[in-house]
Amino acid sequence: MNAMTPLTLHPDRLLPADPAVRPIARQLYDAVRDLPIISPHGHVPPQWLADDVPFEDPTSLLITPDHYVNRMMHAHGVSLADLGVGQAEFSPEQKRNAFRLLCTHWKAYRGTPVKFWFESELVDIFGIDVVPSAETADEIYDAIAEKIATPEFLPRALYRTFPIEFIATTDDPCDDLRHHIKLAGDPTWDGKVAPTFRPDKYLEPATPAWNGLVDTLAEVSGIDTGTYAGWVAAMENRRAFFKANGAVSTDHSHRDARVEPISDAEAERLYALARSGKITVEDGHTLRRNFMFQQARMASEDGLVMTLHPAVYRNHHAPSFERYGADVGGDIPMAVEFTNAVQPMLSAFGTNPNFQVIFFTIDETVYSRELAPLAGFYPSVYVGAPWWFIDSPEAMTRYRSAVTETAGFSRTSGFIDDTRAYLSIPARHDTNRRMDSGFLAKLVADHRLTMDEALDTAYDLVVTNPRKAFKL
Amino acid sequence: MNAMTPLTLHPDRLLPADPAVRPIARQLYDAVRDLPIISPHGHVPPQWLADDVPFEDPTSLLITPDHYVNRMMHAHGVSLADLGVGQAEFSPEQKRNAFRLLCTHWKAYRGTPVKFWFESELVDIFGIDVVPSAETADEIYDAIAEKIATPEFLPRALYRTFPIEFIATTDDPCDDLRHHIKLAGDPTWDGKVAPTFRPDKYLEPATPAWNGLVDTLAEVSGIDTGTYAGWVAAMENRRAFFKANGAVSTDHSHRDARVEPISDAEAERLYALARSGKITVEDGHTLRRNFMFQQARMASEDGLVMTLHPAVYRNHHAPSFERYGADVGGDIPMAVEFTNAVQPMLSAFGTNPNFQVIFFTIDETVYSRELAPLAGFYPSVYVGAPWWFIDSPEAMTRYRSAVTETAGFSRTSGFIDDTRAYLSIPARHDTNRRMDSGFLAKLVADHRLTMDEALDTAYDLVVTNPRKAFKL
Amino acid sequence: MNAMTPLTLHPDRLLPADPAVRPIARQLYDAVRDLPIISPHGHVPPQWLADDVPFEDPTSLLITPDHYVNRMMHAHGVSLADLGVGQAEFSPEQKRNAFRLLCTHWKAYRGTPVKFWFESELVDIFGIDVVPSAETADEIYDAIAEKIATPEFLPRALYRTFPIEFIATTDDPCDDLRHHIKLAGDPTWDGKVAPTFRPDKYLEPATPAWNGLVDTLAEVSGIDTGTYAGWVAAMENRRAFFKANGAVSTDHSHRDARVEPISDAEAERLYALARSGKITVEDGHTLRRNFMFQQARMASEDGLVMTLHPAVYRNHHAPSFERYGADVGGDIPMAVEFTNAVQPMLSAFGTNPNFQVIFFTIDETVYSRELAPLAGFYPSVYVGAPWWFIDSPEAMTRYRSAVTETAGFSRTSGFIDDTRAYLSIPARHDTNRRMDSGFLAKLVADHRLTMDEALDTAYDLVVTNPRKAFKL
Repeated sequence: MNAMTPLTLHPDRLLPADPAVRPIARQLYDAVRDLPIISPHGHVPPQWLADDVPFEDPTSLLITPDHYVNRMMHAHGVSLADLGVGQAEFSPEQKRNAFRLLCTHWKAYRGTPVKFWFESELVDIFGIDVVPSAETADEIYDAIAEKIATPEFLPRALYRTFPIEFIATTDDPCDDLRHHIKLAGDPTWDGKVAPTFRPDKYLEPATPAWNGLVDTLAEVSGIDTGTYAGWVAAMENRRAFFKANGAVSTDHSHRDARVEPISDAEAERLYALARSGKITVEDGHTLRRNFMFQQARMASEDGLVMTLHPAVYRNHHAPSFERYGADVGGDIPMAVEFTNAVQPMLSAFGTNPNFQVIFFTIDETVYSRELAPLAGFYPSVYVGAPWWFIDSPEAMTRYRSAVTETAGFSRTSGFIDDTRAYLSIPARHDTNRRMDSGFLAKLVADHRLTMDEALDTAYDLVVTNPRKAFKL
Repeated sequence: MNAMTPLTLHPDRLLPADPAVRPIARQLYDAVRDLPIISPHGHVPPQWLADDVPFEDPTSLLITPDHYVNRMMHAHGVSLADLGVGQAEFSPEQKRNAFRLLCTHWKAYRGTPVKFWFESELVDIFGIDVVPSAETADEIYDAIAEKIATPEFLPRALYRTFPIEFIATTDDPCDDLRHHIKLAGDPTWDGKVAPTFRPDKYLEPATPAWNGLVDTLAEVSGIDTGTYAGWVAAMENRRAFFKANGAVSTDHSHRDARVEPISDAEAERLYALARSGKITVEDGHTLRRNFMFQQARMASEDGLVMTLHPAVYRNHHAPSFERYGADVGGDIPMAVEFTNAVQPMLSAFGTNPNFQVIFFTIDETVYSRELAPLAGFYPSVYVGAPWWFIDSPEAMTRYRSAVTETAGFSRTSGFIDDTRAYLSIPARHDTNRRMDSGFLAKLVADHRLTMDEALDTAYDLVVTNPRKAFKL
Repeated sequence: MNAMTPLTLHPDRLLPADPAVRPIARQLYDAVRDLPIISPHGHVPPQWLADDVPFEDPTSLLITPDHYVNRMMHAHGVSLADLGVGQAEFSPEQKRNAFRLLCTHWKAYRGTPVKFWFESELVDIFGIDVVPSAETADEIYDAIAEKIATPEFLPRALYRTFPIEFIATTDDPCDDLRHHIKLAGDPTWDGKVAPTFRPDKYLEPATPAWNGLVDTLAEVSGIDTGTYAGWVAAMENRRAFFKANGAVSTDHSHRDARVEPISDAEAERLYALARSGKITVEDGHTLRRNFMFQQARMASEDGLVMTLHPAVYRNHHAPSFERYGADVGGDIPMAVEFTNAVQPMLSAFGTNPNFQVIFFTIDETVYSRELAPLAGFYPSVYVGAPWWFIDSPEAMTRYRSAVTETAGFSRTSGFIDDTRAYLSIPARHDTNRRMDSGFLAKLVADHRLTMDEALDTAYDLVVTNPRKAFKL
């Protein structure tokens, strides 16, 4: 590859090459390209927007916190430490070196969405037309560093530039939501940043951290969590606090999708065991599934939308977890089952007009087999967009192909970026808009939809669907 | 969308848009488009053809009995009751309103095969060129009502118009097959309407209804079903009755695909428990799997083809089942396993020249992993066409892609429509002919098949394959 | 089909038909078409190359040993005996008849890779332009027989013609590797033929043959295998012998992918039970999973690459196994799980720079869900190419689509032919080069890769990837 060739973004990138389809896709894409971004699930730190201070440097912005980027380098033998992961101290020279490592391994990202996102960021956000490589790393690093020091690259300015219309963060139930409150009270800020209630750790009574967390829950809510009934009341209290501060959804990620009630008496019994640190792993699952049922019941009352992201083996590589902690790229998906798992929940709340749930999966086999049939019957169920590992062009096409014929377009969630990589948000949504335009264009080209129907649907997927699915 | 734009059907609809493929696909499709329909598995009531009386009204013909149509409206919050489901009384105005609900929700069907089928029915069968919408609902309703009152729309007339060459119904083992007998004895009728032996309920000894059903089986067969041996003899008796009245196959749908013999002594023991209402759920499965093995053994003797449609969670939403009963759209597929499950059956009968079995699935993962390898080795095994939720263009393409490379075309069942929606039958078969033509055209375009081979195969898929798979 | 039409191979076969993609694919394919073949896993008998004697006849070369070819005829009712399977005596007339059977059933192979491979062999290797059919069978048989009697068709000559750069065989741990040793010592031979250590049978302590095999292992290694420690030492001894004679990898195929250690004391206890023939099936699995962990530990020390091919139900049709033995086409894949199964192995050795493992699967569901995430994090893990039943054009495309977005191209193994059908090796590799060229061309056509990136990647997939994955 000639390093002198400038990096350019073709206007038709990701659109189908077929000459009978591309012009249609381009027309559809043009109609949605510039619509504001709705991002109802993600991991951007709210403090960035609340405090609106400049990003520090290219590496701490684009590499260290982004496990999409890091995991591939790790697979090529790069130590996570050299990327800044888990490093209390990380010198300017180390940061520059981390960026060099990324550029040196740039070839490894071919065919992955990271390449698409990063190149989009370089060209579209930073105006840098240089292909990453060992030779160009420093030049790119310096150019980015210079840009992020300017007012145009402050978090709030970028929010307006992208532009974002709504963004949700992901927050601990005991969080005081100070950043959200600050934003809400700031007369100079007219964006929308909503918290999301993410109670996973409080629902796993057989884990070592649980008792401490539940103690904190009592403190924060002012409700005694010594009993199961207290846990339930405290949860309701925190959900109400989140809702009062703008939350629209709760997010749940456990090893399986099972949601199943037990009697209150049995729940109290298991809860007491858990509080005394004596619950077995198996009973822990039973109680957790009941906790989940309680979350669903609360959702049917307070109207917060549930999102489920089950079946990931967290911290698969034990030594990496011990050295670097969680969320460093060592999570590996597993097969998941929904049909049986969610039956008790949907028999109880599935047609409750106040209840809404979105099922996300990395196990693509459930799309046509389970999720589309569920969303094609239950008015409360939406099929979540491809997520995490499958938040990518080929997978998006497989998703639409697998889901649409049973659930149509209207029963899908709309895109979620699910990212902490703030600068990648426009590119991620753009990827999805391009792929959905291509999918719709194919349906127009073989006369399954008229152009009017496709244009209307393209708009819905970007605007109407996320609004409906997340009750915005 | 402009409601004034007339509804039209493009002659190339569903054919690949690729300009290098479409002309080939069109040529293949033209060669099979007008071949008569062979429909070896479905749910059309035989009485319609036996009595040949006019259809009542558009809603009771096209909406109320069709859970494909209803489930999507239900997912959009429409009550099944408002569609006539489970309503002893349903007034003309309610029927008209149900039709309005469908037309109002027409947008929800975009990308689903229901849209394709229904539009085909409107244009090709009824000659109606109006796009369904809230505004046009009454106009369409009246136009259909007018048509179905004419002699050209009597069931037998439609049979000839479509045209159908062979159609199978699905029938209870205790059915007296009076409609089939009437048709067979009618000198003015030259069509072929075969019954299908569907004994599921008689094979589930742990369900509440079982004892009553087995009592009825005794009455109808004249064979005491107080013992397991009696049950077997009564089953053989009814299979013989069905075969004598034209049946070519038996159909089976249970929670899993397991077919496994137990000793006669053990079967008698479990049977006695079941007859006294004391069998456990787990023993019920064991006995059912042995009953299935007996059905396979009988099939190897009487030559009726077995079709298996396993692994659907029936009546998933308990309140809907309580209110409306079964078959209202609340069935959700589950993962299925065939390799181990059918091993005892295939080791016993798999190379028996009299034995033939077709495996259908909604779990697409088994196509390349299990079903194609099984059908690519056992002369008795055929891979069933995509069924129910996946009876749709994208899924048909995935099916051919997944199955063909291991099992070829010749080991597949040919299309089955599996429908009670009589008027959708031509559109369903047409969908399949178009998609298979497109798949074959792609193989011609990239020189995997010659045009002669593709033309021969296209014909086989419509004519030879169903005849072989169902022994017609 | 007109039997008079000559059989021809289109230069663009298997390349995408899309006019916007094919020219790009052709350019990519041209760049890799003639590169030498690297075949790091397969089943060609090393004696063929060591002794370099002419092949006997078309049937014993192309039909009898090839279960890909035989299984489809069996599915059409042909007896395996009539194809020479398991026949101590098989007369020239029987051989000729077996070839007629293949040609008579030629139509059954449409859409399968066997058709592509066999036609490639006919035209490209034998120069025969006749379409197989009942009428042409004898003509083709005679033409092949004539060719294989010439020096140009001796095994070593073909090795140079194809051309092959490296080929691995598959060998029993107790094999004396005499053929490999003979080749290594032959100054007239400059090819590379490496053995592969395949110890499956020695790792299944609950099978009847195990004790005898472990006795042989003791004899061959000179190490007492009366204890577990002895078994481990004997294994290390044989691995060292294989490595000294050129082996680069060990191959493993068990019912599941689980690799899990137990304590040495527990291993000794179970081993003693197994040696006395008293181990249960379940304990047999436990011990086998520990044996596998030991193989992984040895791999981390001696550096031999592990390849795993799990989850096939061997000898599914019991009567065929009794009559013909193993490997006659009656193996059927099953669902497989990797994420949990390999976690203990990867937590122990996953970042060990000396350890390398390649996961193969016929269960395509694990590609995007488990294997790509594993290979996208662990520097030791490679995603194996589609194997066995899915060693075919459509499946290769699905593989790249499912794997690339998470693991890129660089974490995949490169193609393996896994075949004993020596003459099909060029066609198999050619198929893969064509399909990968088509996949890359699509990424270029929709601007995901530049042409330079695609050309570089196409080369890597043929050369760099297998060298890295197998440490060549």
